[in-house]
Amino acid sequence: MPSKELLHQVENIVGKQSVMTKIEDRLTYAYDASFHRHIPDLVVFPTNEDQVVRLLTLANEEELPIVPRGAGTGLTAGSVPVKGGIVLSLTRMNRIKVINPENLTAIVQPGVVTGFFQREVEKQKLYYPPDPQSFNTSTLGGNIAENAGGPRCFKYGVTRDYVLGLRVISPSGKTWNFGGQTMKNVTGYNMSSLIVGSEGTLGIITQATLRLIPQPEARKTIMAVFNLIEQAAETVSGIIANRIVPAALEFLDDVSLRCIEQTLSIGLPLDAAAILLIEVDGFRETIEREIQLIKEVCIKCGAKGITIAQNDEESQKLWAARRAFAPALLKLNPTRISEDATVPRDKLIDFIKGVKEIAIKYNLKLALAGHAGDGNMHPNFLVNTRDRDEMERVEKAVGELFALTISLGGTLSGEHGIGTTKAPYLSQELNKDTIGVMQAIKHAMDPKGILNPGKIFFGDSVALPFSQE
Amino acid sequence: MPSKELLHQVENIVGKQSVMTKIEDRLTYAYDASFHRHIPDLVVFPTNEDQVVRLLTLANEEELPIVPRGAGTGLTAGSVPVKGGIVLSLTRMNRIKVINPENLTAIVQPGVVTGFFQREVEKQKLYYPPDPQSFNTSTLGGNIAENAGGPRCFKYGVTRDYVLGLRVISPSGKTWNFGGQTMKNVTGYNMSSLIVGSEGTLGIITQATLRLIPQPEARKTIMAVFNLIEQAAETVSGIIANRIVPAALEFLDDVSLRCIEQTLSIGLPLDAAAILLIEVDGFRETIEREIQLIKEVCIKCGAKGITIAQNDEESQKLWAARRAFAPALLKLNPTRISEDATVPRDKLIDFIKGVKEIAIKYNLKLALAGHAGDGNMHPNFLVNTRDRDEMERVEKAVGELFALTISLGGTLSGEHGIGTTKAPYLSQELNKDTIGVMQAIKHAMDPKGILNPGKIFFGDSVALPFSQE
Repeated sequence: MPSKELLHQVENIVGKQSVMTKIEDRLTYAYDASFHRHIPDLVVFPTNEDQVVRLLTLANEEELPIVPRGAGTGLTAGSVPVKGGIVLSLTRMNRIKVINPENLTAIVQPGVVTGFFQREVEKQKLYYPPDPQSFNTSTLGGNIAENAGGPRCFKYGVTRDYVLGLRVISPSGKTWNFGGQTMKNVTGYNMSSLIVGSEGTLGIITQATLRLIPQPEARKTIMAVFNLIEQAAETVSGIIANRIVPAALEFLDDVSLRCIEQTLSIGLPLDAAAILLIEVDGFRETIEREIQLIKEVCIKCGAKGITIAQNDEESQKLWAARRAFAPALLKLNPTRISEDATVPRDKLIDFIKGVKEIAIKYNLKLALAGHAGDGNMHPNFLVNTRDRDEMERVEKAVGELFALTISLGGTLSGEHGIGTTKAPYLSQELNKDTIGVMQAIKHAMDPKGILNPGKIFFGDSVALPFSQE
Repeated sequence: MPSKELLHQVENIVGKQSVMTKIEDRLTYAYDASFHRHIPDLVVFPTNEDQVVRLLTLANEEELPIVPRGAGTGLTAGSVPVKGGIVLSLTRMNRIKVINPENLTAIVQPGVVTGFFQREVEKQKLYYPPDPQSFNTSTLGGNIAENAGGPRCFKYGVTRDYVLGLRVISPSGKTWNFGGQTMKNVTGYNMSSLIVGSEGTLGIITQATLRLIPQPEARKTIMAVFNLIEQAAETVSGIIANRIVPAALEFLDDVSLRCIEQTLSIGLPLDAAAILLIEVDGFRETIEREIQLIKEVCIKCGAKGITIAQNDEESQKLWAARRAFAPALLKLNPTRISEDATVPRDKLIDFIKGVKEIAIKYNLKLALAGHAGDGNMHPNFLVNTRDRDEMERVEKAVGELFALTISLGGTLSGEHGIGTTKAPYLSQELNKDTIGVMQAIKHAMDPKGILNPGKIFFGDSVALPFSQE
């Protein structure tokens, strides 16, 4: 706990009303959507950049950990203060400062909710594609810190592809201006892209300039139902081989379908091994042709049923099913260990088969869904954290899952980040020298190590992946 | 000059036939397409990664400068060995290792020529968009080191947007593996994007995994002729306001047109103030609609003539004019000072007017062309380096040009990099702390400062922008 003197200094910076000290308040900032927890010593809500500068200057002098936090929807404990200190909630810095339709850019504060921002730009027929499942809750700052993805990223790329410039406060309270407002910028090192996905370990984002694109004029969704998982995987390859780029190409397996149907009752096919949800968007004239081509590929690969949404309402219903995936799993199971291993697209079927074998080997219930077009799958092991034996088995299963992923040329994390939950596995993917240079950069930018300590790089003081406080 | 012993060690690593020691040979590696020059002590041509590792290990021990070089087409002296040492030519590491149409990726060595690579992937109906004007000569490694742009970047993004993974040899000979083969990857810091555009100052790229996209099935080019520059600029805004995204949106002013016509004699409109060259690509059905929309915008903004290329041949002729820009200028003038200042799109007209005023103020001949859709213009001051008075005036003009750019919220460099030619201006755009953290990263990754010394960051030992050796 901070000394009275320190608390007083913090209160002087942000005002008493912007500091949480009571245990019942701090408890709600002890976790994210993973299951690691640690109670912060203080929760502070700056309302402007100057307060962030002063807080960091103070924290750096006192060597006090600072853990930035958006909406806390992360899945790898990125915003969990595993070493205590101050949780810095950026949710009160939530203004959209500019939407500039002539330059196709927007300037935002970090606390703006992603979904709100998307709706605002769409009012001007513009589009901000990155759409993590949490988009209606998560913040742009959090999305940037984690380089969030989502279904649309197959066609449109990830958060990084939309960040032109960042204002970042350094761990010692300096102001860094990275990138800018232009589409092209090669003045000095590309620091914005380094900050994107750095999980709050290198600096505090106080402002972002984001790239916007014209909103697609039309969209259409198709659902294809398969008796065999292989058929679904072949369809994904077939679509890519036909040089079609859908806006989304999502996969749901039988366990996922049953969980979602039990929750939503919308008539999902319960006798299927898997479905693909495919959305095309773009020009009116071309989406019909693309849908027809996709339909042909699905039939050729053995789809036993195809549903083309005839209007927005029908399309929304299909997407509601996909979005219900995580909540439905949690409604029917005590908890889920959700991974986001990503493999090259041509290795998708090997990955799916391998994961299923691992689940059988360790007698674990597995629900599999994900962004098949990106090779970015979300295997969810459905477990009960009170069942010690099951937790031991899932720990082994996750280890094998990562080994499988890496053997297929894939990566530990496609969109969730490393945080604490995947930190122990980092050295399976990256060699010592590669991790070493990342740590050298961390040290160069945050010499005292006050920013989000205990993340990404596995040290002995970091919690083990399946332990809880 | 290196000692006999050192030369012997280098020859031991790469073989005698891969080292140039004679002055007449070394002279040809003293320059790029800027007008800074410095003769290297040695030119070395490694043929595999192991040789690069051993060369860097040696250079690091001996604290010998290493300057990586592709085809030497850079415009800011990025590959000029301003502090001597070894020029490391990567041109003999020029294999396309894999083109994977199922994963939409390719794995290449750094010395592959960009245009050759583009033609190879197009054979498989795939597409690699980044297209710097030098694409038929420049190498992928050089493009990555400079984060090269080009006309198509308006729609498709820059080189960075196509780099998924890099193998990089560290300044002390370690092997760094950054990123990978997957579309999404958030495992550790995004080091690939930091290497892209780092101008050979952080590591030697020995292999790149590049993202490919499906080749657009059709394209069409339109040329619009304007009596007033303002009309051309308004047309650019109008196209963006109509939410059209052409593949290219290029601008050429009257001086440029006259130079090109004198060289090519293809009937360019010599009485115009400016032309726009606009290309749309994508689906057959939609490009017609887009061309019509663009035509309407052009007419509304006052275009006095519009030519729509009726076939590939006509289209090629128009693009040949654009590509002839730089050679035509040099044919008719002793030299050109070419800049690539980039402003937000909605500031294009202010920028063009401002640059013209600067040229008048300093009595300089100016040719103006560029990627108008990106706000990325190339003002070319046409000068004679033997005219001391003119060179003094152009130095002042360039200083004012950068001040104008920054006052409009723009950047010193959109695609050419900083090198030595723009290093003296860096602090006009970036504050002390922002430059400081970039230097801290340089120091963390290259503690002895052996890699491409004297670039980006202005020190007193760096040549002044307009001096020559």
